[in-house]
Amino acid sequence: MDIKKLEYISTLPDPPYYAVIFTSYKAEYDEGYSKTAQHMLELAALQPGYLGVDSARENSIGITVSYWRDEASIHQWKQQLEHQQAQQLGRTQWYEEYSVRIAKVERSYSFRRGL
Amino acid sequence: MDIKKLEYISTLPDPPYYAVIFTSYKAEYDEGYSKTAQHMLELAALQPGYLGVDSARENSIGITVSYWRDEASIHQWKQQLEHQQAQQLGRTQWYEEYSVRIAKVERSYSFRRGL
Repeated sequence: MDIKKLEYISTLPDPPYYAVIFTSYKAEYDEGYSKTAQHMLELAALQPGYLGVDSARENSIGITVSYWRDEASIHQWKQQLEHQQAQQLGRTQWYEEYSVRIAKVERSYSFRRGL
Repeated sequence: MDIKKLEYISTLPDPPYYAVIFTSYKAEYDEGYSKTAQHMLELAALQPGYLGVDSARENSIGITVSYWRDEASIHQWKQQLEHQQAQQLGRTQWYEEYSVRIAKVERSYSFRRGL
């Protein structure tokens, strides 16, 4: 099921679960990058323990937050072969700078107009 | 010190610390919104326990991740008077949908080209 068809932003189970906050700086547009980034989003969604993702890029700053059931799922995704190749390209060709922060989501709340 | 002058994305102390992941959907551009959002980023930076913020908006989806020393700092910022007024405007006028997730950052790593 593609939840993006039903809602604008990810709907997730109740906490606790894990978030990987990936913040990056990338100076120039690059078609190869965009294709790979999109493919990685699709590939992540197929991994065990994947819960959802939200992503935005503005003025060279990109923020992608992916959500996972547990740390083991995050570790497994980091080691996935195609993802490893993309990470390598990220470091050698695409990103000027990035940070990855692994965080345990302890609580959450949300708002939707009309609810 | 404005760390944005030195680096593209936030540089933070070693974990643990807290992240507030604010993901929103806002259909239309609104000048009042943009001014208030910018003012809130500036105001947040003055709060006790504030560590940094990264923010991007693309195609109506916005992601702002603010970082805080502890949960008490997050609670205090949520209650701040001008921020309360902005939250109220967010619900009544600006956002179609948003989620707020409070997460404890347990580990992090980063990359910078040329380092």
